Amino acid sequence: MLLNEKVQKKIDMLTKPKGSLGLLEKIALKYALIQGSSTVSLPKDKRVYVFAGDHGVVEQGVSAYPKEVTAQMVFNFLAGGAAINVFSKHNNTSVYIVDAGVDYDFSSEPRVINKKVGRSTKDFSSGPAMTSEQAELCIKHGREVATQAINDGADLLAIGDMGIGNTTTAAAICAGLGIPVEEVLDVGTLIDNQMLTKKGEVLEKTMKLHSPFKSPMDVLMKAGGFCIGEMAGFMLECADRKVPFVVDGFPVSSAALLAYRINPRIRDYMFIGHQSAVKSHLPIIKELGLEPILKLEMRLGEGTGAVLSFNIIEAALKMLNEMSSFEDANISKSDIE
Amino acid sequence: MLLNEKVQKKIDMLTKPKGSLGLLEKIALKYALIQGSSTVSLPKDKRVYVFAGDHGVVEQGVSAYPKEVTAQMVFNFLAGGAAINVFSKHNNTSVYIVDAGVDYDFSSEPRVINKKVGRSTKDFSSGPAMTSEQAELCIKHGREVATQAINDGADLLAIGDMGIGNTTTAAAICAGLGIPVEEVLDVGTLIDNQMLTKKGEVLEKTMKLHSPFKSPMDVLMKAGGFCIGEMAGFMLECADRKVPFVVDGFPVSSAALLAYRINPRIRDYMFIGHQSAVKSHLPIIKELGLEPILKLEMRLGEGTGAVLSFNIIEAALKMLNEMSSFEDANISKSDIE
Repeated sequence: MLLNEKVQKKIDMLTKPKGSLGLLEKIALKYALIQGSSTVSLPKDKRVYVFAGDHGVVEQGVSAYPKEVTAQMVFNFLAGGAAINVFSKHNNTSVYIVDAGVDYDFSSEPRVINKKVGRSTKDFSSGPAMTSEQAELCIKHGREVATQAINDGADLLAIGDMGIGNTTTAAAICAGLGIPVEEVLDVGTLIDNQMLTKKGEVLEKTMKLHSPFKSPMDVLMKAGGFCIGEMAGFMLECADRKVPFVVDGFPVSSAALLAYRINPRIRDYMFIGHQSAVKSHLPIIKELGLEPILKLEMRLGEGTGAVLSFNIIEAALKMLNEMSSFEDANISKSDIE
Repeated sequence: MLLNEKVQKKIDMLTKPKGSLGLLEKIALKYALIQGSSTVSLPKDKRVYVFAGDHGVVEQGVSAYPKEVTAQMVFNFLAGGAAINVFSKHNNTSVYIVDAGVDYDFSSEPRVINKKVGRSTKDFSSGPAMTSEQAELCIKHGREVATQAINDGADLLAIGDMGIGNTTTAAAICAGLGIPVEEVLDVGTLIDNQMLTKKGEVLEKTMKLHSPFKSPMDVLMKAGGFCIGEMAGFMLECADRKVPFVVDGFPVSSAALLAYRINPRIRDYMFIGHQSAVKSHLPIIKELGLEPILKLEMRLGEGTGAVLSFNIIEAALKMLNEMSSFEDANISKSDIE
């Protein structure tokens, strides 16, 4: 019997009507297939990696927050006061901060993992966001961060993002990968209608300037971000090492789409932690063909939705490992099969 | 300043864009209003009460499982092998089983809380499900269970149900309360189309037999269940004692609707743990006007969706208590207010 049939049969024999635990059954099945066993190891070292970076396109006035907030939020993460700190502590998860390209010098902060590709990308509405060497470096850096995490023993990974302007970059990535601009344009964090119009114009201008795109790496170079490139590299490495990872909202999912276009097999190791209130998250979810675990109308980033989903993932795994079967519990089965 | 304004202002000052934590912000606000303070006490004694009962209408062939499964599942709860046991342990919650009216004698099982109103209701498609005295006793018993829980120190309560035939009874309750039969008819657990047709016929016959209904208590007597009546009483008592409680899927929510029609103020203390895959859950959610916390396509009952939502509720409370404000963290605020 194939492993997926074996696991499905085990799930169907648990003391509940067939299929009645919905998404939890699908999570358990996928996790079991990742681990190659019908009894799974529960995660022992859960981590979230928050990739921070600045975006040159912010010069165009597409964000409600000043660029300085990226570095200020990194300090908030270090001080433990951000949402991701609170939720990670709540779900027994360690927080790691990666400087992918913040316009600030963190060299005196050993707790920040230094994977800086540059101090902010360039404004992609007037030229490439980065050089092709920098794009390659993003992937390499992201893979290195994942390698270190996995070698340390991390066995369930969440990916988060922080960077003023990141939803504009995420939208450019998606548009460069072929999703129509109107489907990936949304307010991100709080911006008003005037700013949203500006954001749309900037995206149209960017697509006009850089099309056609030759490859996912070409999209990353021309219209990407250092943090998004590193997140994509991180995911590619997780999949190569067969370690499950959980993506968060729109920016992280744009990195997931980029990585998926590079290697479609990463989907077998990927969970989508939540469906963001940012409506441009939807076309990515649709292409990835995965069901988000939580739907809480959140739009914060930082990995918050991914880390909150850990509790549900763990519940699904415990269902598989700990529930009694009809036979064990001596319960009459349904008349209908 | 009114408390709700004070709490909302506190939430808006946390280091995140305004509104970006979506439903978690609403949960935190509601919980703070229940406790009457902008800093909340985290739950210290979380419990789920699973109300078990049998339903005379099962004689009509509306369920895929034989009636004996109700008692068999109670033993599964006691043995710790059911989904509710696994999820409750996962979320640090104690499981209590209440015998509201199972057709089995649990007198030798001290772990089952004996609130038996009778050994199964009568078939409501051919007469009243219970006497008016029994209906009153259900409410009284439910209140007693809640009183004991709260006096013991329980501060966050989930309500679950177990009983073969309970979605048929829940549908009859809803129909008796004025929701059209076609909106409350669904497969419950696994039944086939022939059984579903039968279930619809039984419901139509029941409504024809018992209409008009004079009051919520009249609905309970004519077309209810012992477990549903006790759950309604439990909720009424929680609200009187100002203790937050979380309802589960369709049967528990039909009890919530019954209790809400008796006292609309209970809504201020109520959370809906999850939106069930049973589509008849939706009209109840709509009338209660509350947003379900989880949407996992589950349809199991036992309180499983309610207990899984505890982790999200606690995350929301920790957000309120533990996150830094923009001022504390020295972060630039948005240009847009």
